[in-house]
Amino acid sequence: MKLLDGAIAAVDHGGSLGRASALFPHAPRPFVDLSTGINPHSYPLFELPATTLSRLPEAARLGELRAVAATAYGAPSPAQVAAAPGTQILLPRVASLVRPGMALVLGPTYAEHSRAAAIAGHVATEVDDVEALAEADLAVVVNPNNPDGRVVERERLLRLAAQLRAKGGLLVVDEAFMDVGPDAESLAGDVGQGGIVVLRSFGKFFGLAGLRLGFALADTLTVQRLETQFGPWAVAGPALEYGIRALGDITWQAAMRQRLAQDAARLDGLFARFGTAVAGGTTLFRHLSLPGAADLFSALGQRGVLLRHFADRPHVLRAGLPGEEADWQRLEAALADWASLRNDQAEEPNP
Amino acid sequence: MKLLDGAIAAVDHGGSLGRASALFPHAPRPFVDLSTGINPHSYPLFELPATTLSRLPEAARLGELRAVAATAYGAPSPAQVAAAPGTQILLPRVASLVRPGMALVLGPTYAEHSRAAAIAGHVATEVDDVEALAEADLAVVVNPNNPDGRVVERERLLRLAAQLRAKGGLLVVDEAFMDVGPDAESLAGDVGQGGIVVLRSFGKFFGLAGLRLGFALADTLTVQRLETQFGPWAVAGPALEYGIRALGDITWQAAMRQRLAQDAARLDGLFARFGTAVAGGTTLFRHLSLPGAADLFSALGQRGVLLRHFADRPHVLRAGLPGEEADWQRLEAALADWASLRNDQAEEPNP
Repeated sequence: MKLLDGAIAAVDHGGSLGRASALFPHAPRPFVDLSTGINPHSYPLFELPATTLSRLPEAARLGELRAVAATAYGAPSPAQVAAAPGTQILLPRVASLVRPGMALVLGPTYAEHSRAAAIAGHVATEVDDVEALAEADLAVVVNPNNPDGRVVERERLLRLAAQLRAKGGLLVVDEAFMDVGPDAESLAGDVGQGGIVVLRSFGKFFGLAGLRLGFALADTLTVQRLETQFGPWAVAGPALEYGIRALGDITWQAAMRQRLAQDAARLDGLFARFGTAVAGGTTLFRHLSLPGAADLFSALGQRGVLLRHFADRPHVLRAGLPGEEADWQRLEAALADWASLRNDQAEEPNP
Repeated sequence: MKLLDGAIAAVDHGGSLGRASALFPHAPRPFVDLSTGINPHSYPLFELPATTLSRLPEAARLGELRAVAATAYGAPSPAQVAAAPGTQILLPRVASLVRPGMALVLGPTYAEHSRAAAIAGHVATEVDDVEALAEADLAVVVNPNNPDGRVVERERLLRLAAQLRAKGGLLVVDEAFMDVGPDAESLAGDVGQGGIVVLRSFGKFFGLAGLRLGFALADTLTVQRLETQFGPWAVAGPALEYGIRALGDITWQAAMRQRLAQDAARLDGLFARFGTAVAGGTTLFRHLSLPGAADLFSALGQRGVLLRHFADRPHVLRAGLPGEEADWQRLEAALADWASLRNDQAEEPNP
């Protein structure tokens, strides 16, 4: 058997309470989980008809989802929208749209992109300059970026896409956090020209990551090719129903964007009060860069407040938004503990 | 871009009320949908915790699902179980485990297997003799078969697997309907030796096709390779929770097997009363083979009762089991109408 390289290692992620419990066995429960960029204020849950679970998902309902997603994301038409059970499962399929070659990922960023490119047979490398991406067969930009919130301008990406397209390459733009802007930089409306795949994630902004729903926006032929891979019932009934309702609810979306902006500002203020300046991010997560990042991660973790740390970038932390007021209070108390501990240490006379 | 063959056409399926409405616009509603092999008596629905939808699925919970699935299906251990969002999405990935070559599918059978093999780059052909499969790089057997219920013995399949394995080939056994037996012929316990992938579908027997949950049982390395393709959160929260509870509920499973056997016998009796002998199937669907199959399909469809017909086999019909007593009554009335119409025609003097 010709087998894929089994040595493509799994990637560490936030959002696992199992891992958190192993790391911080004595922490007070429940954890305040700020280790992801998932909105803690989920789209309101509603009763699903039993047939959503019992029957095969209907093609017509999938068509409605594609139509409402095209409008919500600004794709030219539903024919430019492929729906999948989460963005994650799309990544190796999108990376497989180009013949194995050189994949360049604008980094540092979400590690699954390099992994997906490797699964698809590419030699994958992270680069830190957008211009360098023009050398790639497959170029990947997370926009805005996770975890630092860096935004690459649409004009620059379109130039890059044209360069890649001219030699048969592909530009993948992961807009997982574009729901909270800046949407003028989105390439969703540009996918019709070909050579561009835009990824959009439903679960993060709508706070429904357990549903598994993601989209690839691309030219019609590429959409058909992706759908051929996934088959007729790739999106589960519950994801179809929530996707159609939530993506069509622009009132909720507008109010939520405002709320998240307020919450992000509040979070920045809180970190600032304890001497930690926020270095960037989006309104779904904040990016911290500080010398004592590992200490802060541990101090909060032991108090049951989980941030996201990155094994290969020990000075970086990412903080999602607290949801309940009690979660804000626990974060504040944990930060106060950490700050006073730090001050004690600073005031201790050197031996 | 190296692109997949966009010409791999979609396959016709049962289970679409949208298609049924287009075919039979004047039929009384709701349709009695007997066009699938999905159990009409779903596993009892239960309230899901909100975190099932809001949070990313936990790795630990996926581990529990794999463990309970290994026990339910008779796999050697959880390490031989890969879980996916439906069996359908697994097919091209499983077919891609072998280098593109000759795929032979024991037919006539579920058309998606040939399609998946073609997507994976194989030249796919249906053959009607198990022995002929030994020539393949990728051999596919649906066991028991859909739609005729044909069963290939385990011993014969193991011999075939050994022949294929010896030359680097792969045997895929789709046991989508093995939940209703004969489970002595299942290869689930044999996957550890390698060269065998057994597919199991959750949605059919448990009547929860909208959840999207399926499994590939295989040797540990193959399982890891499939999971690498799907990434860490392939199975949605609701599917995890229903899978764990229902696959572990052997009391419900035993009672349901008995109920389905009774219902299948009742369905055979009903068709027999109207002069149509059932030619095979499983207790989740019955297989009819008759010269007037197209007329029967139309007559029932116009009365709002949907069977499954097959464009390339006009004499074959498949009938799923009615659920509610009212559905049985509507099927009986429709069959009676059809029979009297047929008799009228037969009694009409020739012009």
